[in-house]
Amino acid sequence: MERHIDLELQRVKDELVRMASLAEAAIGLAVKALVSRDAEIARQVIASDDAINALEVEIDDLCLRTMARYQPEAKDLRFLAMALKIDNDLERMGDQAVNIAERTLDLLKEPLLKPLIDIPRMAEIAQRMVKESLDAFVSHDAERARAVCRQDDEVDRLDDQIFRELLTYMMEDPKTITRLVHLILISRHLERVADHATNIAEDVYYLVRGTSIKHHLAGE
Amino acid sequence: MERHIDLELQRVKDELVRMASLAEAAIGLAVKALVSRDAEIARQVIASDDAINALEVEIDDLCLRTMARYQPEAKDLRFLAMALKIDNDLERMGDQAVNIAERTLDLLKEPLLKPLIDIPRMAEIAQRMVKESLDAFVSHDAERARAVCRQDDEVDRLDDQIFRELLTYMMEDPKTITRLVHLILISRHLERVADHATNIAEDVYYLVRGTSIKHHLAGE
Repeated sequence: MERHIDLELQRVKDELVRMASLAEAAIGLAVKALVSRDAEIARQVIASDDAINALEVEIDDLCLRTMARYQPEAKDLRFLAMALKIDNDLERMGDQAVNIAERTLDLLKEPLLKPLIDIPRMAEIAQRMVKESLDAFVSHDAERARAVCRQDDEVDRLDDQIFRELLTYMMEDPKTITRLVHLILISRHLERVADHATNIAEDVYYLVRGTSIKHHLAGE
Repeated sequence: MERHIDLELQRVKDELVRMASLAEAAIGLAVKALVSRDAEIARQVIASDDAINALEVEIDDLCLRTMARYQPEAKDLRFLAMALKIDNDLERMGDQAVNIAERTLDLLKEPLLKPLIDIPRMAEIAQRMVKESLDAFVSHDAERARAVCRQDDEVDRLDDQIFRELLTYMMEDPKTITRLVHLILISRHLERVADHATNIAEDVYYLVRGTSIKHHLAGE
Protein backbone atom coordinates (compact mmCIF):
# COMPACT_ATOMS: atom_id res chain seq x y z
CA MET A 1 0.00 0.00 0.00
CA GLU A 2 1.28 3.44 -0.92
CA ARG A 3 1.50 5.75 2.06
CA HIS A 4 1.31 9.54 1.74
CA ILE A 5 4.67 9.92 3.41
CA ASP A 6 6.27 7.81 0.65
CA LEU A 7 5.63 10.62 -1.82
CA GLU A 8 7.47 13.04 0.44
CA LEU A 9 10.34 10.63 1.01
CA GLN A 10 10.64 10.12 -2.72
CA ARG A 11 10.75 13.87 -3.19
CA VAL A 12 13.58 14.20 -0.66
CA LYS A 13 15.43 11.45 -2.50
CA ASP A 14 14.92 13.11 -5.90
CA GLU A 15 16.09 16.49 -4.64
CA LEU A 16 19.18 14.97 -3.04
CA VAL A 17 20.05 13.17 -6.28
CA ARG A 18 19.58 16.42 -8.18
CA MET A 19 21.77 18.27 -5.70
CA ALA A 20 24.45 15.58 -5.99
CA SER A 21 24.39 15.81 -9.79
CA LEU A 22 24.93 19.55 -9.58
CA ALA A 23 27.80 19.13 -7.12
CA GLU A 24 29.40 16.40 -9.22
CA ALA A 25 29.08 18.54 -12.37
CA ALA A 26 30.56 21.57 -10.58
CA ILE A 27 33.62 19.57 -9.55
CA GLY A 28 34.06 18.20 -13.07
CA LEU A 29 33.73 21.65 -14.63
CA ALA A 30 36.09 23.27 -12.12
CA VAL A 31 38.82 20.78 -13.02
CA LYS A 32 37.99 21.15 -16.71
CA ALA A 33 38.46 24.92 -16.35
CA LEU A 34 41.83 24.25 -14.74
CA VAL A 35 43.05 21.77 -17.33
CA SER A 36 41.82 23.66 -20.39
CA ARG A 37 42.72 27.04 -18.86
CA ASP A 38 39.24 28.37 -19.48
CA ALA A 39 38.21 31.36 -17.33
CA GLU A 40 34.66 31.29 -18.71
CA ILE A 41 34.02 27.80 -17.35
CA ALA A 42 35.56 28.75 -13.99
CA ARG A 43 33.17 31.68 -13.73
CA GLN A 44 30.22 29.40 -14.60
CA VAL A 45 31.15 27.12 -11.71
CA ILE A 46 31.21 30.05 -9.32
CA ALA A 47 27.83 31.29 -10.56
CA SER A 48 26.20 27.86 -10.36
CA ASP A 49 26.89 27.51 -6.64
CA ASP A 50 23.75 29.46 -5.71
CA ALA A 51 21.55 26.67 -7.04
CA ILE A 52 23.35 24.11 -4.87
CA ASN A 53 23.10 26.32 -1.80
CA ALA A 54 19.39 26.91 -2.38
CA LEU A 55 18.79 23.17 -2.57
CA GLU A 56 20.25 22.63 0.89
CA VAL A 57 17.81 25.08 2.43
CA GLU A 58 14.95 23.54 0.40
CA ILE A 59 15.76 19.95 1.39
CA ASP A 60 16.14 20.92 5.06
CA ASP A 61 12.70 22.52 4.96
CA LEU A 62 11.16 19.54 3.21
CA CYS A 63 12.63 17.09 5.74
CA LEU A 64 11.44 19.13 8.70
CA ARG A 65 7.97 19.58 7.29
CA THR A 66 7.72 15.85 6.58
CA MET A 67 8.88 15.00 10.10
CA ALA A 68 6.39 17.43 11.64
CA ARG A 69 3.49 16.34 9.49
CA TYR A 70 3.84 12.54 9.47
CA GLN A 71 5.77 11.97 12.69
CA PRO A 72 7.49 9.03 11.05
CA GLU A 73 8.92 6.12 13.02
CA ALA A 74 12.29 4.37 13.06
CA LYS A 75 13.28 3.77 9.43
CA ASP A 76 11.64 6.81 7.81
CA LEU A 77 12.83 9.06 10.60
CA ARG A 78 16.40 7.81 10.17
CA PHE A 79 16.11 8.44 6.44
CA LEU A 80 15.05 12.06 6.97
CA ALA A 81 17.73 12.65 9.60
CA MET A 82 20.40 11.32 7.24
CA ALA A 83 19.07 13.51 4.43
CA LEU A 84 19.73 16.53 6.68
CA LYS A 85 23.34 15.43 7.03
CA ILE A 86 23.83 14.46 3.40
CA ASP A 87 22.69 17.82 2.00
CA ASN A 88 25.23 19.49 4.29
CA ASP A 89 28.04 17.46 2.73
CA LEU A 90 26.79 18.14 -0.80
CA GLU A 91 26.70 21.86 -0.10
CA ARG A 92 30.31 21.70 1.09
CA MET A 93 31.30 19.90 -2.10
CA GLY A 94 29.86 22.77 -4.09
CA ASP A 95 32.01 25.12 -2.02
CA GLN A 96 35.09 23.06 -2.83
CA ALA A 97 34.29 23.32 -6.55
CA VAL A 98 34.04 27.11 -6.15
CA ASN A 99 37.40 27.14 -4.36
CA ILE A 100 38.99 25.22 -7.24
CA ALA A 101 37.42 27.58 -9.79
CA GLU A 102 38.64 30.68 -7.90
CA ARG A 103 42.13 29.28 -7.61
CA THR A 104 42.03 28.45 -11.33
CA LEU A 105 41.29 32.08 -12.13
CA ASP A 106 44.42 33.02 -10.16
CA LEU A 107 46.47 30.41 -11.99
CA LEU A 108 45.36 31.70 -15.38
CA LYS A 109 47.28 34.90 -14.72
CA GLU A 110 50.52 32.96 -15.16
CA PRO A 111 51.82 30.59 -17.83
CA LEU A 112 51.17 26.86 -17.63
CA LEU A 113 53.83 24.86 -15.84
CA LYS A 114 53.34 21.34 -17.08
CA PRO A 115 50.47 19.17 -18.24
CA LEU A 116 48.29 18.13 -15.33
CA ILE A 117 47.84 14.39 -14.97
CA ASP A 118 47.32 13.42 -11.34
CA ILE A 119 44.84 16.17 -10.48
CA PRO A 120 42.33 15.19 -13.22
CA ARG A 121 42.71 11.57 -12.12
CA MET A 122 41.99 12.53 -8.55
CA ALA A 123 38.97 14.56 -9.69
CA GLU A 124 37.66 11.55 -11.61
CA ILE A 125 37.80 9.32 -8.54
CA ALA A 126 36.26 12.01 -6.32
CA GLN A 127 33.40 12.54 -8.79
CA ARG A 128 32.81 8.80 -9.02
CA MET A 129 32.68 8.62 -5.23
CA VAL A 130 30.02 11.36 -5.16
CA LYS A 131 27.94 9.51 -7.72
CA GLU A 132 28.33 6.11 -6.10
CA SER A 133 27.56 7.39 -2.61
CA LEU A 134 24.25 8.72 -3.91
CA ASP A 135 23.62 5.49 -5.87
CA ALA A 136 24.14 3.58 -2.62
CA PHE A 137 21.67 5.95 -0.96
CA VAL A 138 19.02 5.55 -3.65
CA SER A 139 19.38 1.76 -3.88
CA HIS A 140 19.69 1.42 -0.12
CA ASP A 141 22.86 -0.62 -0.56
CA ALA A 142 25.24 -0.86 2.42
CA GLU A 143 27.92 -2.77 0.52
CA ARG A 144 28.07 -0.12 -2.18
CA ALA A 145 28.38 2.51 0.54
CA ARG A 146 31.27 0.61 2.08
CA ALA A 147 32.98 0.41 -1.33
CA VAL A 148 32.90 4.23 -1.57
CA CYS A 149 34.67 4.53 1.78
CA ARG A 150 37.44 2.24 0.54
CA GLN A 151 38.21 4.50 -2.44
CA ASP A 152 39.06 7.33 -0.09
CA ASP A 153 42.48 5.77 0.52
CA GLU A 154 43.34 6.03 -3.18
CA VAL A 155 42.47 9.73 -3.17
CA ASP A 156 44.57 10.32 -0.05
CA ARG A 157 47.48 8.50 -1.69
CA LEU A 158 47.22 10.68 -4.81
CA ASP A 159 46.98 13.83 -2.73
CA ASP A 160 50.13 12.83 -0.91
CA GLN A 161 51.94 12.01 -4.13
CA ILE A 162 50.98 15.34 -5.71
CA PHE A 163 52.12 17.17 -2.58
CA ARG A 164 55.59 15.56 -2.61
CA GLU A 165 56.05 15.93 -6.35
CA LEU A 166 55.12 19.61 -6.40
CA LEU A 167 57.40 20.36 -3.46
CA THR A 168 60.31 18.92 -5.46
CA TYR A 169 59.51 21.14 -8.44
CA MET A 170 59.31 24.21 -6.21
CA MET A 171 62.71 23.57 -4.76
CA GLU A 172 64.21 23.18 -8.22
CA ASP A 173 62.71 26.41 -9.48
CA PRO A 174 61.50 28.97 -6.93
CA LYS A 175 59.82 31.03 -9.67
CA THR A 176 57.14 28.32 -9.81
CA ILE A 177 56.29 28.44 -6.11
CA THR A 178 53.09 30.50 -6.22
CA ARG A 179 51.58 28.45 -9.01
CA LEU A 180 52.52 25.14 -7.43
CA VAL A 181 51.14 26.07 -4.03
CA HIS A 182 47.82 26.77 -5.77
CA LEU A 183 47.95 23.29 -7.28
CA ILE A 184 48.69 21.73 -3.88
CA LEU A 185 45.63 23.49 -2.50
CA ILE A 186 43.49 22.34 -5.43
CA SER A 187 44.58 18.79 -4.74
CA ARG A 188 43.57 19.36 -1.13
CA HIS A 189 40.14 20.61 -2.20
CA LEU A 190 39.61 17.41 -4.19
CA GLU A 191 40.70 15.35 -1.24
CA ARG A 192 38.00 17.08 0.79
CA VAL A 193 35.37 16.32 -1.85
CA ALA A 194 36.28 12.66 -1.43
CA ASP A 195 35.99 13.08 2.35
CA HIS A 196 32.49 14.45 2.00
CA ALA A 197 31.52 11.54 -0.30
CA THR A 198 32.92 9.17 2.32
CA ASN A 199 30.87 10.91 4.97
CA ILE A 200 27.72 10.44 2.86
CA ALA A 201 28.55 6.77 2.31
CA GLU A 202 28.96 6.33 6.06
CA ASP A 203 25.56 7.93 6.61
CA VAL A 204 24.04 5.58 4.03
CA TYR A 205 25.60 2.59 5.77
CA TYR A 206 24.07 3.74 9.05
CA LEU A 207 20.73 4.26 7.37
CA VAL A 208 20.65 0.74 5.93
CA ARG A 209 22.29 -1.24 8.71
CA GLY A 210 21.47 0.85 11.76
CA THR A 211 25.09 0.64 12.96
CA SER A 212 27.88 3.11 12.31
CA ILE A 213 31.08 2.41 10.36
CA LYS A 214 32.20 5.96 10.98
CA HIS A 215 35.76 6.32 12.19
CA HIS A 216 36.53 2.67 11.52
CA LEU A 217 37.01 2.37 7.80
CA ALA A 218 38.16 5.79 6.74
CA GLY A 219 39.16 8.92 8.57
CA GLU A 220 39.57 12.43 7.28
CA MET B 1 5.23 22.75 33.41
CA GLU B 2 8.22 20.52 32.86
CA ARG B 3 7.72 18.15 29.96
CA HIS B 4 9.54 14.82 29.71
CA ILE B 5 10.99 15.80 26.37
CA ASP B 6 12.67 18.82 27.99
CA LEU B 7 14.99 16.49 29.88
CA GLU B 8 16.05 14.88 26.61
CA LEU B 9 16.51 18.23 24.88
CA GLN B 10 18.63 19.41 27.79
CA ARG B 11 20.73 16.27 27.48
CA VAL B 12 21.31 16.90 23.76
CA LYS B 13 22.32 20.46 24.60
CA ASP B 14 24.72 19.33 27.35
CA GLU B 15 26.35 16.73 25.13
CA LEU B 16 26.79 19.25 22.31
CA VAL B 17 28.40 21.74 24.69
CA ARG B 18 30.70 19.00 25.96
CA MET B 19 31.60 18.01 22.40
CA ALA B 20 32.29 21.65 21.52
CA SER B 21 34.56 22.06 24.57
CA LEU B 22 36.55 19.01 23.50
CA ALA B 23 36.86 20.32 19.93
CA GLU B 24 37.86 23.78 21.12
CA ALA B 25 40.46 22.29 23.49
CA ALA B 26 41.84 20.06 20.72
CA ILE B 27 42.36 23.07 18.45
CA GLY B 28 44.03 25.03 21.23
CA LEU B 29 46.33 22.13 22.11
CA ALA B 30 47.22 21.41 18.48
CA VAL B 31 48.40 25.00 18.03
CA LYS B 32 50.16 24.90 21.41
CA ALA B 33 52.02 21.78 20.23
CA LEU B 34 53.03 23.68 17.09
CA VAL B 35 54.18 26.83 18.88
CA SER B 36 56.00 25.11 21.74
CA ARG B 37 57.32 22.33 19.44
CA ASP B 38 55.96 19.66 21.74
CA ALA B 39 55.42 16.23 20.14
CA GLU B 40 53.82 14.84 23.29
CA ILE B 41 50.98 17.37 23.14
CA ALA B 42 50.51 16.71 19.41
CA ARG B 43 50.13 13.00 20.13
CA GLN B 44 47.61 13.76 22.88
CA VAL B 45 45.48 15.71 20.39
CA ILE B 46 45.51 12.79 17.97
CA ALA B 47 44.56 10.33 20.72
CA SER B 48 41.76 12.51 22.05
CA ASP B 49 39.88 12.54 18.73
CA ASP B 50 38.17 9.21 19.49
CA ALA B 51 36.17 10.83 22.27
CA ILE B 52 34.92 13.55 19.91
CA ASN B 53 33.99 11.00 17.24
CA ALA B 54 32.13 8.85 19.76
CA LEU B 55 30.08 11.85 20.85
CA GLU B 56 28.80 12.44 17.32
CA VAL B 57 27.42 8.90 17.12
CA GLU B 58 25.96 9.25 20.63
CA ILE B 59 24.26 12.59 19.96
CA ASP B 60 22.84 11.32 16.65
CA ASP B 61 21.34 8.34 18.46
CA LEU B 62 19.95 10.50 21.22
CA CYS B 63 18.31 12.90 18.73
CA LEU B 64 16.75 10.10 16.74
CA ARG B 65 15.45 8.30 19.82
CA THR B 66 13.97 11.55 21.11
CA MET B 67 12.31 12.26 17.77
CA ALA B 68 10.88 8.74 17.58
CA ARG B 69 9.68 8.67 21.16
CA TYR B 70 8.17 12.12 21.58
CA GLN B 71 7.30 13.03 17.98
CA PRO B 72 8.01 16.66 18.76
CA GLU B 73 6.49 19.56 16.84
CA ALA B 74 7.91 22.62 15.13
CA LYS B 75 10.38 24.20 17.54
CA ASP B 76 11.65 21.06 19.30
CA LEU B 77 11.89 19.21 16.02
CA ARG B 78 13.94 22.00 14.51
CA PHE B 79 16.18 21.93 17.55
CA LEU B 80 16.86 18.21 17.16
CA ALA B 81 17.41 18.52 13.41
CA MET B 82 19.94 21.31 13.95
CA ALA B 83 21.70 19.24 16.63
CA LEU B 84 22.25 16.55 13.96
CA LYS B 85 23.96 19.14 11.78
CA ILE B 86 25.94 20.81 14.55
CA ASP B 87 27.54 17.59 15.78
CA ASN B 88 28.72 16.94 12.22
CA ASP B 89 30.55 20.28 12.18
CA LEU B 90 32.05 19.68 15.61
CA GLU B 91 33.34 16.30 14.52
CA ARG B 92 35.00 17.93 11.51
CA MET B 93 36.66 20.48 13.77
CA GLY B 94 38.18 17.64 15.74
CA ASP B 95 39.53 16.26 12.45
CA GLN B 96 41.10 19.62 11.65
CA ALA B 97 42.83 19.63 15.06
CA VAL B 98 44.21 16.16 14.27
CA ASN B 99 45.43 17.41 10.89
CA ILE B 100 47.26 20.29 12.59
CA ALA B 101 48.79 17.91 15.15
CA GLU B 102 49.96 15.49 12.45
CA ARG B 103 51.48 18.29 10.43
CA THR B 104 53.18 19.58 13.60
CA LEU B 105 54.83 16.20 14.08
CA ASP B 106 56.23 16.51 10.53
CA LEU B 107 57.43 20.05 11.23
CA LEU B 108 59.25 18.97 14.39
CA LYS B 109 61.66 16.97 12.24
CA GLU B 110 63.17 20.24 11.02
CA PRO B 111 64.48 23.35 12.79
CA LEU B 112 62.19 26.28 13.59
CA LEU B 113 61.99 28.97 10.94
CA LYS B 114 60.73 31.99 12.79
CA PRO B 115 58.46 32.73 15.74
CA LEU B 116 54.84 32.13 14.84
CA ILE B 117 52.57 35.11 15.39
CA ASP B 118 49.67 35.10 12.95
CA ILE B 119 48.82 31.41 13.27
CA PRO B 120 48.27 31.54 17.06
CA ARG B 121 46.18 34.67 16.55
CA MET B 122 44.08 32.93 13.95
CA ALA B 123 43.67 29.94 16.27
CA GLU B 124 42.50 32.24 19.04
CA ILE B 125 39.77 33.76 16.87
CA ALA B 126 38.72 30.34 15.56
CA GLN B 127 38.47 28.94 19.10
CA ARG B 128 36.47 31.95 20.22
CA MET B 129 34.10 31.42 17.28
CA VAL B 130 33.56 27.79 18.31
CA LYS B 131 32.79 28.83 21.87
CA GLU B 132 30.53 31.71 20.88
CA SER B 133 28.58 29.68 18.33
CA LEU B 134 27.74 27.19 21.07
CA ASP B 135 26.95 30.00 23.51
CA ALA B 136 24.52 31.38 20.93
CA PHE B 137 23.02 27.91 20.64
CA VAL B 138 22.61 27.45 24.40
CA SER B 139 21.23 30.93 24.99
CA HIS B 140 19.08 30.77 21.85
CA ASP B 141 20.51 34.10 20.70
CA ALA B 142 20.27 34.93 16.99
CA GLU B 143 22.27 38.15 17.27
CA ARG B 144 25.16 36.37 18.91
CA ALA B 145 25.03 33.80 16.13
CA ARG B 146 25.19 36.53 13.54
CA ALA B 147 28.20 38.06 15.32
CA VAL B 148 30.08 34.76 14.93
CA CYS B 149 29.48 34.78 11.17
CA ARG B 150 30.98 38.24 10.96
CA GLN B 151 34.27 37.14 12.52
CA ASP B 152 34.81 34.69 9.69
CA ASP B 153 36.01 37.55 7.49
CA GLU B 154 38.85 38.35 9.90
CA VAL B 155 39.99 34.72 9.80
CA ASP B 156 39.87 34.69 6.00
CA ARG B 157 41.91 37.87 5.94
CA LEU B 158 44.56 36.39 8.24
CA ASP B 159 44.67 33.18 6.20
CA ASP B 160 45.25 35.24 3.09
CA GLN B 161 47.94 37.33 4.74
CA ILE B 162 49.78 34.24 6.03
CA PHE B 163 49.58 32.68 2.56
CA ARG B 164 51.16 35.69 0.85
CA GLU B 165 53.80 36.19 3.52
CA LEU B 166 54.94 32.58 3.51
CA LEU B 167 55.10 32.51 -0.29
CA THR B 168 57.53 35.43 -0.13
CA TYR B 169 59.76 33.62 2.36
CA MET B 170 59.77 30.49 0.21
CA MET B 171 60.91 32.43 -2.82
CA GLU B 172 63.72 34.01 -0.84
CA ASP B 173 64.96 30.70 0.49
CA PRO B 174 63.85 27.51 -1.26
CA LYS B 175 65.30 25.37 1.56
CA THR B 176 62.31 26.50 3.65
CA ILE B 177 59.67 25.39 1.16
CA THR B 178 58.56 22.13 2.76
CA ARG B 179 58.20 23.66 6.20
CA LEU B 180 56.37 26.71 4.93
CA VAL B 181 53.90 24.71 2.86
CA HIS B 182 53.05 22.83 6.05
CA LEU B 183 52.38 26.17 7.75
CA ILE B 184 50.18 27.30 4.87
CA LEU B 185 48.16 24.12 5.23
CA ILE B 186 47.88 24.61 9.01
CA SER B 187 46.56 28.10 8.40
CA ARG B 188 44.04 26.54 5.98
CA HIS B 189 42.97 24.01 8.63
CA LEU B 190 42.26 26.87 11.05
CA GLU B 191 40.33 28.68 8.38
CA ARG B 192 38.15 25.58 8.04
CA VAL B 193 37.56 25.46 11.80
CA ALA B 194 36.21 29.01 11.51
CA ASP B 195 34.03 27.87 8.58
CA HIS B 196 32.52 25.10 10.68
CA ALA B 197 31.86 27.54 13.53
CA THR B 198 30.16 29.84 11.01
CA ASN B 199 28.07 26.93 9.81
CA ILE B 200 26.97 26.22 13.38
CA ALA B 201 26.12 29.87 13.93
CA GLU B 202 24.02 29.83 10.75
CA ASP B 203 22.17 26.77 12.03
CA VAL B 204 21.55 28.52 15.35
CA TYR B 205 20.19 31.54 13.54
CA TYR B 206 17.80 29.31 11.60
CA LEU B 207 16.79 27.56 14.79
CA VAL B 208 15.93 30.82 16.56
CA ARG B 209 14.47 32.85 13.71
CA GLY B 210 13.16 30.15 11.41
CA THR B 211 14.79 31.80 8.39
CA SER B 212 18.18 31.08 6.91
CA ILE B 213 21.12 33.50 6.73
CA LYS B 214 23.19 30.84 5.02
CA HIS B 215 25.02 31.98 1.96
CA HIS B 216 24.23 35.61 2.60
CA LEU B 217 26.56 36.77 5.32
CA ALA B 218 29.55 34.52 4.98
CA GLY B 219 30.60 31.94 2.44
CA GLU B 220 33.26 29.30 2.69
